Formats: sequence, C-alpha cells, structure tokens
Amino acid sequence: MAAPRYIDLPTTEFGRLADDTVFVLPLGAIEQHGPHLPVSTDYTVADMTADAAVEAAAAAGVPALLLPTLAFTKSDEHSRFPGSIWLDWDTMMRTLIDIGRSLAATPVSRLVFINGHGGNSAIAQVACRELRKQFGLRTFLTGPYSGMDFSLSPASERGMSVHAMYLETSLMLHLRPDLVRMEHAAACVPEALLDFEHIGFNRKASFGWLADDLSDTGVIGDPTAATAEVGAGLFESAVAHLAAVIGEASRFRTR
Amino acid sequence: MAAPRYIDLPTTEFGRLADDTVFVLPLGAIEQHGPHLPVSTDYTVADMTADAAVEAAAAAGVPALLLPTLAFTKSDEHSRFPGSIWLDWDTMMRTLIDIGRSLAATPVSRLVFINGHGGNSAIAQVACRELRKQFGLRTFLTGPYSGMDFSLSPASERGMSVHAMYLETSLMLHLRPDLVRMEHAAACVPEALLDFEHIGFNRKASFGWLADDLSDTGVIGDPTAATAEVGAGLFESAVAHLAAVIGEASRFRTR
Amino acid sequence: MAAPRYIDLPTTEFGRLADDTVFVLPLGAIEQHGPHLPVSTDYTVADMTADAAVEAAAAAGVPALLLPTLAFTKSDEHSRFPGSIWLDWDTMMRTLIDIGRSLAATPVSRLVFINGHGGNSAIAQVACRELRKQFGLRTFLTGPYSGMDFSLSPASERGMSVHAMYLETSLMLHLRPDLVRMEHAAACVPEALLDFEHIGFNRKASFGWLADDLSDTGVIGDPTAATAEVGAGLFESAVAHLAAVIGEASRFRTR
Amino acid sequence: MAAPRYIDLPTTEFGRLADDTVFVLPLGAIEQHGPHLPVSTDYTVADMTADAAVEAAAAAGVPALLLPTLAFTKSDEHSRFPGSIWLDWDTMMRTLIDIGRSLAATPVSRLVFINGHGGNSAIAQVACRELRKQFGLRTFLTGPYSGMDFSLSPASERGMSVHAMYLETSLMLHLRPDLVRMEHAAACVPEALLDFEHIGFNRKASFGWLADDLSDTGVIGDPTAATAEVGAGLFESAVAHLAAVIGEASRFRTR
Amino acid sequence: MAAPRYIDLPTTEFGRLADDTVFVLPLGAIEQHGPHLPVSTDYTVADMTADAAVEAAAAAGVPALLLPTLAFTKSDEHSRFPGSIWLDWDTMMRTLIDIGRSLAATPVSRLVFINGHGGNSAIAQVACRELRKQFGLRTFLTGPYSGMDFSLSPASERGMSVHAMYLETSLMLHLRPDLVRMEHAAACVPEALLDFEHIGFNRKASFGWLADDLSDTGVIGDPTAATAEVGAGLFESAVAHLAAVIGEASRFRTR
Amino acid sequence: MAAPRYIDLPTTEFGRLADDTVFVLPLGAIEQHGPHLPVSTDYTVADMTADAAVEAAAAAGVPALLLPTLAFTKSDEHSRFPGSIWLDWDTMMRTLIDIGRSLAATPVSRLVFINGHGGNSAIAQVACRELRKQFGLRTFLTGPYSGMDFSLSPASERGMSVHAMYLETSLMLHLRPDLVRMEHAAACVPEALLDFEHIGFNRKASFGWLADDLSDTGVIGDPTAATAEVGAGLFESAVAHLAAVIGEASRFRTR
Repeated sequence: MAAPRYIDLPTTEFGRLADDTVFVLPLGAIEQHGPHLPVSTDYTVADMTADAAVEAAAAAGVPALLLPTLAFTKSDEHSRFPGSIWLDWDTMMRTLIDIGRSLAATPVSRLVFINGHGGNSAIAQVACRELRKQFGLRTFLTGPYSGMDFSLSPASERGMSVHAMYLETSLMLHLRPDLVRMEHAAACVPEALLDFEHIGFNRKASFGWLADDLSDTGVIGDPTAATAEVGAGLFESAVAHLAAVIGEASRFRTR
Repeated sequence: MAAPRYIDLPTTEFGRLADDTVFVLPLGAIEQHGPHLPVSTDYTVADMTADAAVEAAAAAGVPALLLPTLAFTKSDEHSRFPGSIWLDWDTMMRTLIDIGRSLAATPVSRLVFINGHGGNSAIAQVACRELRKQFGLRTFLTGPYSGMDFSLSPASERGMSVHAMYLETSLMLHLRPDLVRMEHAAACVPEALLDFEHIGFNRKASFGWLADDLSDTGVIGDPTAATAEVGAGLFESAVAHLAAVIGEASRFRTR
Repeated sequence: MAAPRYIDLPTTEFGRLADDTVFVLPLGAIEQHGPHLPVSTDYTVADMTADAAVEAAAAAGVPALLLPTLAFTKSDEHSRFPGSIWLDWDTMMRTLIDIGRSLAATPVSRLVFINGHGGNSAIAQVACRELRKQFGLRTFLTGPYSGMDFSLSPASERGMSVHAMYLETSLMLHLRPDLVRMEHAAACVPEALLDFEHIGFNRKASFGWLADDLSDTGVIGDPTAATAEVGAGLFESAVAHLAAVIGEASRFRTR
Repeated sequence: MAAPRYIDLPTTEFGRLADDTVFVLPLGAIEQHGPHLPVSTDYTVADMTADAAVEAAAAAGVPALLLPTLAFTKSDEHSRFPGSIWLDWDTMMRTLIDIGRSLAATPVSRLVFINGHGGNSAIAQVACRELRKQFGLRTFLTGPYSGMDFSLSPASERGMSVHAMYLETSLMLHLRPDLVRMEHAAACVPEALLDFEHIGFNRKASFGWLADDLSDTGVIGDPTAATAEVGAGLFESAVAHLAAVIGEASRFRTR
Repeated sequence: MAAPRYIDLPTTEFGRLADDTVFVLPLGAIEQHGPHLPVSTDYTVADMTADAAVEAAAAAGVPALLLPTLAFTKSDEHSRFPGSIWLDWDTMMRTLIDIGRSLAATPVSRLVFINGHGGNSAIAQVACRELRKQFGLRTFLTGPYSGMDFSLSPASERGMSVHAMYLETSLMLHLRPDLVRMEHAAACVPEALLDFEHIGFNRKASFGWLADDLSDTGVIGDPTAATAEVGAGLFESAVAHLAAVIGEASRFRTR
Repeated sequence: MAAPRYIDLPTTEFGRLADDTVFVLPLGAIEQHGPHLPVSTDYTVADMTADAAVEAAAAAGVPALLLPTLAFTKSDEHSRFPGSIWLDWDTMMRTLIDIGRSLAATPVSRLVFINGHGGNSAIAQVACRELRKQFGLRTFLTGPYSGMDFSLSPASERGMSVHAMYLETSLMLHLRPDLVRMEHAAACVPEALLDFEHIGFNRKASFGWLADDLSDTGVIGDPTAATAEVGAGLFESAVAHLAAVIGEASRFRTR
C-alpha cells in the first residue's frame, strides 16, 4: 500500500474529508552538499521519509494525505555555492502562508510540515503560528532528523554534525547510492569554533552563519566513514518518528 | 537514457557547465479539474512532458538539465473549488524571481519554463522579462499545449476547450489512467459566451474569469469522448515541440 | 458629442449609475519609440482611440464612462533608453488593484482596459483576474492593436512588427504628425531571430526580451514607408473594434 | 508658446538635456468634491496651473519640461464617497519612487512636484527625501495652494477652508465653469472642531481625519459665495508662484 | 505622582479602560546630532517631554497612559553619519500600523503621537490617517517643538534652526548636560540657501534634503550660545503644550 | 560603573570604535502575562538583564555598547488578550534588517540579540542569517532564559513552564515587585497536552499555538509559589550567562 497522495484526488473528494485527516507537506531543499552529495540531498531525505511515514501512518489507520515535497526553500546560507537555489525569507514565508490558506479551504485543519533542511526550521516555526492565527489551522513541525540519534556521529565531527556529514551521507548511501561520490567525501570541521563555550552549534547562544564562513567545500562534519547500513537504520528511525507524529497530529487537541 | 536532472549534480559540477546549457523548469499546478480528473492534472502533464522533452533533447546532444516541477503555482481562478492550492500573484512572481536569481549564480544563462497551466502564462511572461532585466538570463516560455492541435477538440466544446476538457482528459487517460474517473466525466460549456463576438476565450478581448463564473463542476469543455489513444498522440506532439524549443534555446541569440 | 468622462461627474452622480455602465481605463506608456517618434506614442494611441471609442459607444446608446489614461506603466523593456518611465511589476499591479477597488465602491462592476502598450498585456491580464476575484468586478482587456490588420505591415519587417514600426508610425502620422520626425525613421529588424522557428515574436515559445537586446535605435520594425493615410484607416478600425468591445462589455454575462 | 512637454520628445533628445533642466510632475487626484464640483477638481487645478507655470517659466528662459499629471493618487480620506479613486500609501509611494528612478536615468536631476491635493502632501514629502537618497535627484514640493491667499476665504468657513470650499470652487468657476453646479453648493463647516484650541486644521496638533468624520456632503468649507473672478485671481497668483519655484529649482544648490 | 504607564498594567486592566483614555506614544530617533550632542537627542527630548506631559495631564484628571518611546524611526536623512539608525519608510509605516492595530484591540480609541524628530512628521501624518481608516482610531500628531518659540533662535542661524541647533542644544543642556560636549559645538548654516526665496526651510516650496547636502558636521544651525536656562524654559513650554493636547484628545470629537 | 550606552555617544565617536566592539540589542515584548504580571514583563527582563550583562562585560574589559531595548516585537500569539502589542512577522523582520543595516555602517560588525520573549526566537534566528548575508555582520542570539535552570520549575507545571510561570514571576518579584499582583496569580497548565508524547513544548515536534488555545488567563505554568529570592538567583545566572556570551562575541571567529 503506497502513501495516499493529496494530488491524486479529484476536487469532489476534498469536501468529504474527515476532520481528523492530516495533511503532510515535506519541505526539501536544493542546495550544495559538498563535492560528494547531490544538491538534491535534503529534498530526497524529506521526500522519501515523508512518503514512508505517511504510508506507515495510513497502514495504521491514520487518515493522512501526502502533499508534493516543496523543492525550493530557504537555502540562503549556501547561496555562495553554485547549484543552490534559495527563496528569500519573505518568499518562503508567503509560500507557506498561501499553501496553508489554500488547505484551510477544505474541511481539514491539520497540517504537518516534515522539514528536511535545518535552514527552514525557524521560518517554518514562524509559519506554523501564522497559519494558526490567520486560518485556524492546527500546524505541526518536525523532520527526519528529529527522530535520529546524533550520538552515532563520529568523534571526528567534534560535535559539529551539521551539513553533508556522516549521518546525512549515510542516509544518501542508503537512499540514492547512485548519486553519492564517496571518493570526493572529505571532512571539514571548523575547529575555530571549539574555542568558544557559549556560542556555537547546539550552544546556548546561536550565531548567524553562512556555509562559506565555516567551510571551503560546503561540508561541515566528517562524511568519510558513512555507510549505507547506518543510513538504513537512520531511515527506519526517522520514518517511525514521523509516522508517530502524524498519528498524534490526527487526534491532537489543546483543551 | 533518462532526462539529466539538475538536482542529481553536486555543487562542484555547476561551475563546469557550458554556456549553451539549458535549464528547464516545468510549471505545474495543483487545482481542481472537475470530478473526473485528479488535482494533479497540470502538474502531471508539465512534469511528464518536460521530462520526456529533456530526455529527447539530451539524446539529440543538447545540454539540458531538468529542474523539479513547481507544484504550487497561480491557480486562483479555481480557488473556490476545494483541493486547489494557489499562490498569490506576488508570491508566484517572487518565487520565479528567486529561482532565476539562484540559477544566474551558475555559468548558465538559459532558462526554459515549460508551463502546464494556463493561469500561469501571464505571470510567467512577466517573470521572463524581469529575469532578463535583473539577472541577464535568457528566458523562454512555452508549454505542452503550445505544441498541440486544438482542432482535435470536439465540436461539442463550441470552441471553448479550456479546462478538464477533451484534450486534457485524453492526455491523462494516456499518462495516468488509474486516476481518471470517466464515469464522472461530463460536459460543461458556458453557452452564454456564444452570444459575444469580441469578448471570450481566444477572442480579441479577453476577460477576467473564475472557474465558478463559468461552471458548476469546474469543467469547461466536453471530456466525455476523450481516449488514451488521442492522449498518446497529444503527448508525442507536445514532447516533440518542447524538445525543439529546448534545442533552439541552447543556441538562441538576438544579434 | 464628446466621450462622457468619469472625472466630470460629481460624487453624487456615481451612486445613480446603472449596472450596465462600463468604465473604460486606457493604459498608455511613456517610453522610447526610436528617434522618430515621441515617448508619448503609446499614451497618445491609447488615449485617442479610447476617447473616440467611448464617444462612439455612447452615441450608440451604451452607458460608458472614460477614465483618465494611465500614463506611467510597465515599460521596463525600454528602461535603457532615456526618457522611458517604467513602473516595477508590483507597482503596476498594485496600481491596477487600487483603481479597481475604488471603482468597485460604485454600483458599477464593468471595467474595460484599453491597452496601448504590449508590455502591459501580461500584467493587465493578471490584474483582470485579481479584480474579478477580490472585488467581483467584470474585467475586460483589449487594445487598439487588437483591432488592426497586421498584414498591412511591410515585408521588410520580416514578421517583426513590434515597436515604433510601420503601423505605429502611420498611426502617429495621422494623430500627431507634428511630433513625428520621419527624417530620423529607419528600419531595424533583428534578423538573428529569423534563424529560429519555435522561439520568437508570435511563435509557440516566447522569450524575455529588452529592447536593447534587439535594437540599437529602439525601433523593431521598419517605419520608413509609414503614411498618415494608412494611419487614418488603422485608427478607424481600432476605434470600431474598441467600441464594439465596450458595447459587449455592457451586456456581458457568463451564465 | 505652449508649455514644453516631456512626452513630446523622442528618446534621442533626453540625452542632450542640460543639467539645469527641471522636470515638473503635477499631482492631481480623482476624488469627491461635494455635490457641486466634479471629481476631477484637484486634477484640473494641478494640471492647468502646472501647465501655465511651465509655459511661463519657459517664456522666462527656464529649461523646464512638463510631465503628464498623475491622476490617481492618495485620496483615501474620501474613500467612503463614490467616485473617489485612491491608491494605498505604499502604491503611491512606489509610484513616485519608480517615476523618480526613471527620470534619474536621464542627465536631468531636478524634479518639482506640483501637488494639487492636500492628501498627497505628506507622502510626497517622504518621496522627495527618498528620491534624493536613492537616486540623487534634487526634489521639490509645492502646489497651487501654496501660492494663494487664504485670507480671501469667507468668515463663514470659520478658519476651515479645507475641501470643495470657497477658493477651490472659485478656481473651478474660472477653469471649468461647465462642470460646476452652484445650485448644489452648500456650506458644511464642522463646528465641533471650534471647541478645540490645540487640535485642528492648521493647529499645533494635527489629527487623522476622513472626510466623512467631518461632513455629510463631502464639503468642508463654504463654497456658496465663490465667483469666477476670484478664481481668476487665484489662478494667476498660483501660476506666478509655481513659475517662480520652477525658476529657482533650475539653479538650486545647497552648498 | 509619576506618569501612568501602559506597560505597568496587566492585561486584565485593559478591558476596563474608559473610552476617553488617551494612549500616548513618543516617537524618538537615534541619529547624529553633530559632534557635541549624543545620538540619543531626539529620543531623550521626546521621552522626557512626553513623560512630563502625561504626568501633568494625569494630575489634571485626564486618563492618559504613556507607551514606551519608539527609539528607532525614520532617520534616513542622517544615514551617512555613523551611529544613526534608520528604518525605511515602509518599515516605519508598518510599525505604526501594527502598533495602532494592537491598541485598537482595547476599548481605547485615542492615540497621540508625540514626535521628537522632524524626519518622522510626514510619515506619522500618513499613519494618522491610515489608523483612522483601518481601525477607527482617533489619532493625533504633535511634538515638543510644536510648543516652542522658535523666535528665541539666534540671528546667526539665519532662519535655519534645523538640527542640533541652539534650541535643541539648550534642551539637552537642561535634560542631559552630562552628554553635551559644548567644546565641540560649532555653527553650520548652509548659506547657499539664502539665495532662494521660494524654496527652503519653512518656505512655500520644500525640498528633499539629506544632512550631508547641507553640513559637514551634521549641525544645521548655531548651537554655540545654547544654555541650560533657555533649555529649561523650552522644556516647560513643550510640556505645557503637550499636556494641553492630551487633554483635548481625551474629549475630542468631530461632530 | 553603568553599562556603556550606544545612544550616549555623538556620531563622531562611532568612526573610532574598535573592531572587537559588541553591539547589544535587547528584544523585549509588550504582551499579556496573565492577571498577575504587567504587560512589560518580557521588556523588563530583557532590558534589565542586558543592562547588567553589558555592565559586567564592560567591567571585565569587553568593549560592548548597549542599544535601547526593542519594546514592540512579535507577540502575535497573545494578540487576543488586550494590552498585547504585536508586530507582524514581516514588520519585525524588516525592523531587525533595518537596524542591522544601520549598525553595519559603523566600523563595528558584532551584534548580540538578547531576547526576552520566546515568540521572537525564530524570527530573530532568521534575521541573524539575513544580517550576516546582506551586511556581513557577525550576529548572535541568546537570552536571559538561556542561562537559567528550568529544573527549578515546580512539578505542578508538568514540564510546561511557558508563560507568566514560576520562573518569570520570580524574576519579576525580584525586579519589579511593585508591579506583581500575587493575589491574582493562579496556575494554568494545559493538561490535554500530556496525552501526547511526540508533539508539545520541548518535544521532537513543535506546534503552532496561540495563548488562547491553551489558557483562559494567559498563564501557562504555575506562578503561585514564585518568590523574589528565586528571582534574584535567576537574575544572577542570566546576567552571568549573557556577559559570557558578550565576551565571546567580541573575539568570535569561524576560521
């Protein structure tokens, strides 16, 4: 049984959807992922985990519908590497608002964003509130990486498992090995950041960064030891997590 | 040989692209297509014709790269039928500008829009000029329907072969027969328009219309006699047309 | 009997207007028209044909009111020639939206745009739909050139009768001969375009162009044989066409 | 000798304009002016005074060029009276920015706004600075009423000579007597304002008002004693003032 | 008794506010004020005069509430002097609209802007009307300088008492003498302007200026003779004026 | 020694600032905090912790300058409780962009946002990247709550220490006890959320919420046991955290 797809329905079916239906919109990205991964990486991970999660949720009886993955999103931190495609912050926000407004014209009021690109997280959070406020949608934000165990990352990443790194490369070796060029995989860890205790990735103070501030290749992490086997496990845990969120979204209430 | 895909490349490949490369961006739509066709119709037609056309162009030696089909576009004329998803005019325009700006950061300066939805035509024309002016891109706009013979349309459409009609239904019977519900196909031709000689579809004066001005079902035309065989022929001519345009775009010059 | 003018009425008259009244808004442009025509050319043609058409429609009993011609519009394709004045795409669109919203506050719901500048066509189409959607206006788009016989164009234009060309120059020789400098009239036909079969003016694929891509003088066509006599005939046919559209707009219905 | 007009020139002339040339843009308005004046009132006054002033300046040897009067401007305080046409604050501002940007592409850097509608004054001031900052234009703002003697207003206006009042009606009796319906002229003075010493028209504290806050008819003032003779004098003084400003603008410097 | 402050109340109090309550929003600025005054000057003057005026109004029984002073506003005419912070015209306008919309959600409908920076005056006027139109707020605009006697300015300012001048410096010597560096105070009067009769500060034609058009130091005027004693008197008259406006605003009506 | 303040400097000092100077901008909020806390709560906490932190950093030799606290920010989740003042997402974003652009005109390129309101976090993150990209600023985001020990929260909050809760109330009892009405303090914990494992506050899936979705009083948490003593400790730890971040920001580098 494949994932039920929003776009497969005729308009006449939308009026009949039950209130506990969950719309699922994957947020991908087309952006540089170093010399060893395709620019499709975030798109592929969001798309394939969401697809499997909706399929699993549906198999478990949750009425979910998968929307087409948003390919072009907010990738401006990679804009100085060619091949990256980035929407401005307001184009991205307006896109999410317009989609939410359209969905709110159906009887369904539950929308889960499955975000495969860290650079979308903040703006998608802003959108979740805006859609709740403007259209009354119940909105949710999670992603494949929320369900993964980052402690699997190699010590060589020094706590900076950020981009085109071991986990992401492993996932792609599992999902699209034909597009991975492991011969070009090389570590790039911005060691200057280790001098700081309070500011940094996953620290109490975040900082505004561009990929080229931190890396010549676009990689931030160490993909060299990635394997398809690890990727398979990551995929499985991501899908399980996402399916569970979709299930909860279907019965979510705040009162 | 499949169509070469933009998103399959790593960032390092983009810097090496030749100047006569053509980027191809299909413009789909998710919008009502009456009770017999899925809301994916325009998305599917744009996506599949563009894919085949890029494959054909590549086979003929034209360096073309296919971008992911834009699923959510300017479908506001169908906004009163649930399931339709529409971007506002300025969100749509900003999206095309942002994508063009991103593409202009590569060595490539040729972009063909393959538009599967009539409601995008005008805004895409505006975008073509804007991208030329702002970023120096050479931009081109065509679509699968530009390559079709509308004289195949049945007389019952009275010259109003506009939406979810014979040609489009035939195409879908060819491309995705599993999603077509011919038992729900029914003609809807706004005969009131026949009283006007100067104003109308394909007349010297156009008019601002919403689908619900003209049709209760969302259909404008007569899909009842559509066949997969006709669809196969339409598909073939559309692909040939699009491939020819891509070929010319690769060598286009104005001086 | 002169054309009845919107701006001549006091506010108290607007509440009494009948539902079949037609508001007519000419869209001009102030932009380069080569060395032989004034930058007013599109303004003048839109203004004078619309005026005569409203006068003719009124004489035929159609309740129409002429609005002041919009002088500054979307002329960005000519922005690299001094004297051109261009609104950005969103300024132009917002202008049309604001005007439509204002008109919708009267009892009248019919608005015809008479567009004298090709560069406005696409954005005006977008506006027609937006005004229909947002304010319920019945909107129509046509122009003086829609009613002309382009086959009158000289063979020397090679099918590229685009800007400051034979027809337009003839019209100006009829309407404002004092402003035409025929001694500076010279042909400029971008012959490179003849190498392309699918892409071009009036081809199945359009392209985003700026005037300076195609012409050093700003002319695209061959004005050298233009005459006032031809212009008089063109004017007459344009006015007849526009008056007919206004008449139909007054009784237009879609159901 | 008529006023030299910007739009009468071909593009080739703009490159030859001298640095002390002054572009003059009249700002009109289409808005209610009570039951006795046409909605064209501010348009007509701006247009005709500017025309005569440019003619006078030119006769005095000042190189000035008159642009077409902007008809649709910021008339939102009259939006609840039908026939008024109003641009939003940002549409109006963007329009002035776009026009200024276009003019700055010529060798000329002097632009005088001749504003006939009080509701435009504040936004035009903002635009003057923006155009100076963004494009280096020398911008000036004045209007026909800046050159008039408001002490001519009748005592019955109680210091509130604001809209469709004695002076404005007199001007229109001089300029377009055919459009004035004196039989409908009636005073409307918002006497409640007399209770306030600090807040009011021409007081140290201004207030945000809509015409319908203050008047049932749209009139704010007392037009009943207006005469064409007074209007003729007002016109003469306005033109003299405007011509003097244009002359100074041509040689204005700040250092 | 201190000025009652809006921000000291819990949400539960806002629902109980009487209709004649007046919200008071001071508009400051952070911008260059020459070498002798801090960039806080306009902020300080708006803040301290508004505070004292609300205190005085409250003491007189007027129900007024002081909002926090807006620090960052429209200071773009000083943008070429470091330390200045300027919002774009549309950011400033949107800020005022958003604040007004929020205030309109309480039972209170009276809002007085106390503007300490001339560069805000025009946009604040536009905002006053917009808030009246969109949200029905009764809006008022005045400022500390509206209540001052500019005839106190020294003759050496030649009628150009514009920025960081005698009056402003005197006020700061009274309010924050610790931040005034009189040893750096020096006159700067743009004498070129004296050649013009019609265009200039407080003339019938205004002009778009940047501080650097007129002054190398940022000063426009002559602060050298400023004294704290004069400043004390100016402060007193400003506060009295503002308190009177707040009192009138509480009972203002237009009918 | 008080915190050095940006606004106390004259423009002439800004050109002399060293490259390791840190600008510090506190982000407050004016929004409902239940019946027991003033709407100033987030403003006060951001303002007072930032002030003390800049003072501490300066005392430790770090060249930091405190900017005025932004009072009005993105509080739309509280918009249905009167007294809240909220900027739209784009107004907030534009405000941060404009401030950053202004600061980037000085020799200083380090800006720390000290955010006291959770509703600002996402948009401030977006702004951090935008300012880095557009203006090359090094931007940092942290806040007083980042330095606090949430494990101090009472068990009665069930892990939902979100708004006007124990920690925040304790802080206000320490900072502004005069404005706290403990007699109105009451717990409100949205227990429905406990039914969900994956979606919720601090869960792997976030959700778009408005305060009125979760609480009738605006409180989300249990403030009843708050004390000034606890608040004093929280304040101390917040200030120490913020001072440490400012110190690191002064010497931060990524390579």
